[in-house]
Amino acid sequence: MTSIGVAVAGTGFIGPVHVEGLRRAGQNVIGILGSTPAKSRQAAEQLGLATGYESFDEILGDSRVEAVHIATPNRLHFEMAAQALRAGRHVICEKPLAMNSRESRELMRVAADAGVAAAVAYNIRFYPLCLEARDRITSGRAGSILHVMGSYVQDWLLRDTDFNWRVLSREGGELRALADIGTHWLDLIQFITGLRITAVCADLYTVHRTRRRPTGSVETFQGKACAPQATTQVPIDTDDAGGLLLEFENGARGNLWVSQVTAGRKNCLRFEIAAAEESLAWNSEHPNELWIGRRDSANEVLLRDPALLGPAARAATSYPGGHNEGFPDTFKQLFRAFYGYVAAGDFRAPPPFPTFADGHREIVLCEAILQSHRERRWVAVSENTP
Amino acid sequence: MTSIGVAVAGTGFIGPVHVEGLRRAGQNVIGILGSTPAKSRQAAEQLGLATGYESFDEILGDSRVEAVHIATPNRLHFEMAAQALRAGRHVICEKPLAMNSRESRELMRVAADAGVAAAVAYNIRFYPLCLEARDRITSGRAGSILHVMGSYVQDWLLRDTDFNWRVLSREGGELRALADIGTHWLDLIQFITGLRITAVCADLYTVHRTRRRPTGSVETFQGKACAPQATTQVPIDTDDAGGLLLEFENGARGNLWVSQVTAGRKNCLRFEIAAAEESLAWNSEHPNELWIGRRDSANEVLLRDPALLGPAARAATSYPGGHNEGFPDTFKQLFRAFYGYVAAGDFRAPPPFPTFADGHREIVLCEAILQSHRERRWVAVSENTP
Amino acid sequence: MTSIGVAVAGTGFIGPVHVEGLRRAGQNVIGILGSTPAKSRQAAEQLGLATGYESFDEILGDSRVEAVHIATPNRLHFEMAAQALRAGRHVICEKPLAMNSRESRELMRVAADAGVAAAVAYNIRFYPLCLEARDRITSGRAGSILHVMGSYVQDWLLRDTDFNWRVLSREGGELRALADIGTHWLDLIQFITGLRITAVCADLYTVHRTRRRPTGSVETFQGKACAPQATTQVPIDTDDAGGLLLEFENGARGNLWVSQVTAGRKNCLRFEIAAAEESLAWNSEHPNELWIGRRDSANEVLLRDPALLGPAARAATSYPGGHNEGFPDTFKQLFRAFYGYVAAGDFRAPPPFPTFADGHREIVLCEAILQSHRERRWVAVSENTP
Amino acid sequence: MTSIGVAVAGTGFIGPVHVEGLRRAGQNVIGILGSTPAKSRQAAEQLGLATGYESFDEILGDSRVEAVHIATPNRLHFEMAAQALRAGRHVICEKPLAMNSRESRELMRVAADAGVAAAVAYNIRFYPLCLEARDRITSGRAGSILHVMGSYVQDWLLRDTDFNWRVLSREGGELRALADIGTHWLDLIQFITGLRITAVCADLYTVHRTRRRPTGSVETFQGKACAPQATTQVPIDTDDAGGLLLEFENGARGNLWVSQVTAGRKNCLRFEIAAAEESLAWNSEHPNELWIGRRDSANEVLLRDPALLGPAARAATSYPGGHNEGFPDTFKQLFRAFYGYVAAGDFRAPPPFPTFADGHREIVLCEAILQSHRERRWVAVSENTP
Repeated sequence: MTSIGVAVAGTGFIGPVHVEGLRRAGQNVIGILGSTPAKSRQAAEQLGLATGYESFDEILGDSRVEAVHIATPNRLHFEMAAQALRAGRHVICEKPLAMNSRESRELMRVAADAGVAAAVAYNIRFYPLCLEARDRITSGRAGSILHVMGSYVQDWLLRDTDFNWRVLSREGGELRALADIGTHWLDLIQFITGLRITAVCADLYTVHRTRRRPTGSVETFQGKACAPQATTQVPIDTDDAGGLLLEFENGARGNLWVSQVTAGRKNCLRFEIAAAEESLAWNSEHPNELWIGRRDSANEVLLRDPALLGPAARAATSYPGGHNEGFPDTFKQLFRAFYGYVAAGDFRAPPPFPTFADGHREIVLCEAILQSHRERRWVAVSENTP
Repeated sequence: MTSIGVAVAGTGFIGPVHVEGLRRAGQNVIGILGSTPAKSRQAAEQLGLATGYESFDEILGDSRVEAVHIATPNRLHFEMAAQALRAGRHVICEKPLAMNSRESRELMRVAADAGVAAAVAYNIRFYPLCLEARDRITSGRAGSILHVMGSYVQDWLLRDTDFNWRVLSREGGELRALADIGTHWLDLIQFITGLRITAVCADLYTVHRTRRRPTGSVETFQGKACAPQATTQVPIDTDDAGGLLLEFENGARGNLWVSQVTAGRKNCLRFEIAAAEESLAWNSEHPNELWIGRRDSANEVLLRDPALLGPAARAATSYPGGHNEGFPDTFKQLFRAFYGYVAAGDFRAPPPFPTFADGHREIVLCEAILQSHRERRWVAVSENTP
Repeated sequence: MTSIGVAVAGTGFIGPVHVEGLRRAGQNVIGILGSTPAKSRQAAEQLGLATGYESFDEILGDSRVEAVHIATPNRLHFEMAAQALRAGRHVICEKPLAMNSRESRELMRVAADAGVAAAVAYNIRFYPLCLEARDRITSGRAGSILHVMGSYVQDWLLRDTDFNWRVLSREGGELRALADIGTHWLDLIQFITGLRITAVCADLYTVHRTRRRPTGSVETFQGKACAPQATTQVPIDTDDAGGLLLEFENGARGNLWVSQVTAGRKNCLRFEIAAAEESLAWNSEHPNELWIGRRDSANEVLLRDPALLGPAARAATSYPGGHNEGFPDTFKQLFRAFYGYVAAGDFRAPPPFPTFADGHREIVLCEAILQSHRERRWVAVSENTP
Repeated sequence: MTSIGVAVAGTGFIGPVHVEGLRRAGQNVIGILGSTPAKSRQAAEQLGLATGYESFDEILGDSRVEAVHIATPNRLHFEMAAQALRAGRHVICEKPLAMNSRESRELMRVAADAGVAAAVAYNIRFYPLCLEARDRITSGRAGSILHVMGSYVQDWLLRDTDFNWRVLSREGGELRALADIGTHWLDLIQFITGLRITAVCADLYTVHRTRRRPTGSVETFQGKACAPQATTQVPIDTDDAGGLLLEFENGARGNLWVSQVTAGRKNCLRFEIAAAEESLAWNSEHPNELWIGRRDSANEVLLRDPALLGPAARAATSYPGGHNEGFPDTFKQLFRAFYGYVAAGDFRAPPPFPTFADGHREIVLCEAILQSHRERRWVAVSENTP
């Protein structure tokens, strides 16, 4: 395994997840950047990293750093990704790739010109049984896709006392639940089925039109465990929940429900794909099992056992059957795929990871969703496609 | 328990289910009517009933018969229910109550004038844990409803060789999957939440635009087990699957997915209701368990144990916890409620079962769904409401 | 379906279950007998039966009664079954067949001489997926049996305030949890595997060495829902829980855990049979699913869908896949098998239900279990076999 | 986080698991040792480690190495652990600690004299929900323990063509399934309940009395995925499966079933602890859920959500609820606990990890199990206790 120097920007929930995944993937994590130099130093110390960077420029000036991971708030993605690419660094950017399709289209172009590797961190693709589902479909074994239903629901923003920068449209974008978690599902389903979504009909919903904001900041998922504190009331215009009707390029239909206010569901992505020969269902809260529905014989439950998986899923599996892998493992596998590609060095080869084009497509889709919601009608995704 | 004489019209899948439920509810089943006198006699013999009726008129002329159950194909419901009511018989009619809202409105009026009891067989309401869910919501314990997601999926019409009278719009109506099974879900959710659906956006989908019809007839659910036989190709215009976006009277939102082509799901109704204090999820394939999601403590799984249920659910439970009840038990409980009401004799008292008004509301809703699908837009249910 | 006259002795938990099952199986339930004439009359009225018998003799004198179901406390089984058989009545007796193997051996002989049909109510055999498991094993498809593990656990006697006649050895016998529920498992496993248990090593355990007895009587499973009342302290010498190691005739091994003090398990019988080609696991709290474990391909979950079952299981299934059947349905199916055999009239044909020989074998096994427990050593079942 | 230099001995299944866990725990993995220098170099390269050691002596001579992980075949544990301790290195040794209680007692003494930290890698203790179960019991919340049932079953040795050094008693010890996996369960249950097992009654079972050994070696869990090759027949005297009856120091009882020949169960450890106020059940194939059974209210399913866990479980959790952790995470958490203790530097403080005394106790227990099996009788564990 070839090891290169990597820096991570972002010290919130997901930055340290990248650090751990990089270590498991055998890469050399040089340092980390927080929103202030003090936060950088604190994170570096907690994570056992040599360097807490002063600024993003310092990262780009550090010759040991060959790749940069961008795990900062959404509104910073565009600028940082563009700079890093232009500075000749490989980039893995958290989703969403940018704040709008103008930016994401620009990033696609920058990445294409840069001669480096560039990925968007749609890590859920790297659950081995999601890869297996894709393989059963793209190989034709499952038969043609008839319809897809699914959901992605959480409860960490259930109460009006739950707060995070993501609820503010100027920080996270005009779509929230749909963009933060819904896009994971939308990317995953298009990846698994190999089908593009061509039209959407959306209905979004803000349960709490005001929320109480604590004086200090709150990391994603951390609010639930915090003690009460002083708050101010702030108006909220982003979606807590919402539903989509979907049309796929082959004429198949689907739906998606997204919510961050479903008590008891902590982080629960589910899909149920009905194809002509079998159905495929999966739940991220039981990620080591793929349900395979059959009409004329018993249903199946396929465990994530490398001895039972096809090549793509097996390549993304490190542990034997019954030795559960989980969420952190998806980052390791994404990074193994990415740095294997980097090590191979042929950047015209088809990338085995989600690209900036995938990231751009998601943003185009989000814009269609927002338009559909506002105009309360079906919107063809092609209306917005570059 | 007071026992009265009952006749059942219909010898397909659901007629014999009524006979068994009536016996368990301690009623006296006098006889049964099939589509021909020979079928009547055959069914009577198989079921151990004294009488195989020659005609519906013969039932109405039989003075032993105080109540009539209508379990015939949909297009016969209106006429039979109206006749039976006018002949002074109590009526339990299978859903849908009629073929359109003109008919169902008329039946409401006939029932109101008849001075007898009249129910629509929305049996799923009588799963004890559905009654318990209703109780948790209507008592305020669950908090206000935020959204509802759900599905009702089956696989018995997956292949183009699967056939039944229900696939033909002239026999079963223009809506099929939505009407046959979707309406069970829509009735159930409005019953449990106590909230009316006020607007719908529908997208329906016919997977098989032609099906191969066997020469003989095929009972509901029976096709899968039959040997191959001679077929003719017939065009199909009813829905195999479809999705709905929903708006409830309190502003809550929801979705529903319906399908009769989902391999491996035999008869699977699911709902997940997100309320302010807890979520409630249930699956008809595990009907003895209610999942209760919580934000700030462990989730719960409530088993159908009468010692743990509220009064409404306990009253609809005959067996101790762990002694599973199932689909046939819902008919028994519906009939116990109905014939208890009949025995009490006060037909102005609030009925503890789904009424013809409920049956009419479902048909109005179906018409809004069909309109929404055809016009590809949101339709307010009130547009169609009488 | 031929219908004959049946009387039921016993008005506790299980007597009314028999009445309902008989009605579903199309038999003519003439009347019922309680522990007093008043209880007989009360039960007859509640269940809508014509006759509340004064005495067991009155049943035997009633010429309409061709079959008798014995659902009285255990200590009465021997005498009632013997009398009914000698009076030329078909008999279905609840388990255990008698209080000891001397009695059960005698009953075997009486039944053999009587020229009628005689069954023990091991109803669990009639869950369709238990029949299916048996079929997979006896057909050789599953391969040779390697081992069996399992349990039968409940919680209705968890507290020392829980009381029922079964806890007293003079009422229910010296074994309690093992005999009341353990024997269901032991009968089921021997039925499914086709293998006799040849040796046992038992360790039984009384959690509550005294219990508080209410002044009145308490029906099985009913105590949990009762209000507190006056009690007296009584010493308990029957088992609340216990474990067995098992040896089967082919050399396979197994274990069983039984408990009536496991909080949260209401009535949970589980088995997991490891055979050379597949494993079979089943849980009575999800009786419509059979888990089939595979080494070299995906595991399977077989739903109780008649289109997917073999002949024996299909014959014991009344409802389509996904329309859950449960505990009450097993009695219906047992009675359908029994009264079909009665109607066929050849009592030398192999009976499709558990016989008095099966009931005797269970009692012999229980005696070996008790001896093993007391002597704290392995006991060969053959030591005790007649 | 303080980082120290660590070497790992063992390149089979579990050695690389240690390397990854050490990296996640922020420790500095210097190098690795295989069974030959060539294997050492190959493993070092694959894992991205600087050093492939020539010999165990070379590790002990490497002054950068402050801690040694022993993940070699069982028969090497004693010698390597003793040497490393005597050389002043902290040691984490895989289970079993040694081949017999004479060795393990000796190791206890060496560890006590060495003034360093010494752990046995009972990683399963570090599943957060196992820690939570322990907390519910030791705090008294669950009430006194009544009984424990459980199993640990796998399928990787189902066929007689499955082979691994562990099946040979001279390589792995006279107990196999019981020692390899059963001891994980026995350690875990004593850890969770805080109760020692005082007596055992065992029945072990060798399904395949001969196995076909491939010419080359086969890593644990790897056989299933290999191509067929030349084999020789070898006699097997270790246990493929077996059952135990257990007695705990407080009089509670239990059982355990262990098997490496249960088709479909890949690595499935289950326990169900019945206590006076609640039951606790857990399954390693769904490690993010703890089932809490209740008698008088709904059962609970507690998800591994740090916001819902007590301090001990929360300290061993890195990811938010719904972001599944799994098997690799238990090693990270064990190592975090171990190296936190090392960094604190007070080796008289109670260790927050399994000690050599725990490892010794397991071997004493295994010797009692083997004696019980051979003498076919109950054996008090104290008979063998030092």
